[in-house]
Amino acid sequence: MKFIAEINIMPLKEILDPQGKAVLLGLKHLQLSEIKDVRVGKHITLSLEASSQQEAKEKVEKACSELLANPIMESYSYTLQEINEKIIRR
Amino acid sequence: MKFIAEINIMPLKEILDPQGKAVLLGLKHLQLSEIKDVRVGKHITLSLEASSQQEAKEKVEKACSELLANPIMESYSYTLQEINEKIIRR
Repeated sequence: MKFIAEINIMPLKEILDPQGKAVLLGLKHLQLSEIKDVRVGKHITLSLEASSQQEAKEKVEKACSELLANPIMESYSYTLQEINEKIIRR
Repeated sequence: MKFIAEINIMPLKEILDPQGKAVLLGLKHLQLSEIKDVRVGKHITLSLEASSQQEAKEKVEKACSELLANPIMESYSYTLQEINEKIIRR
């Protein structure tokens, strides 16, 4: 079975987000001052082979918790989609 | 009316993705070699005030096309959610 994972990794709410502040400044220069609370993180897509949905989930969890997300500063969420269209949300 | 936008900015498919390659290498060290086609982009969330859905969409389009995404190397997609739960996808 083949799966596609779409992963979002965001800075924890309480952590300062300098990238978000920089984007906010840029948006002001574009006269888009109605935009607030900008937060910038990573969006990662990947495909993987697994014998079951559960196994695919365990692999994505391992990838996120051991490599992709820094648990001290970031949180992660993902969707896992079997190629023949069954969407699984975490 | 208040809206929340979730924006994904990804490198164009034909563009080399060194970050994706680096992540792939890291995953191999975690014995996750079943994972392929890793692509790394940005996930940006923001809130904005607008008098209508259409106006909110125009502001997010302007933010994406003029600041957040580099049209030569990146593509963007977003969802726009009115705070009282109407989800609009692009």
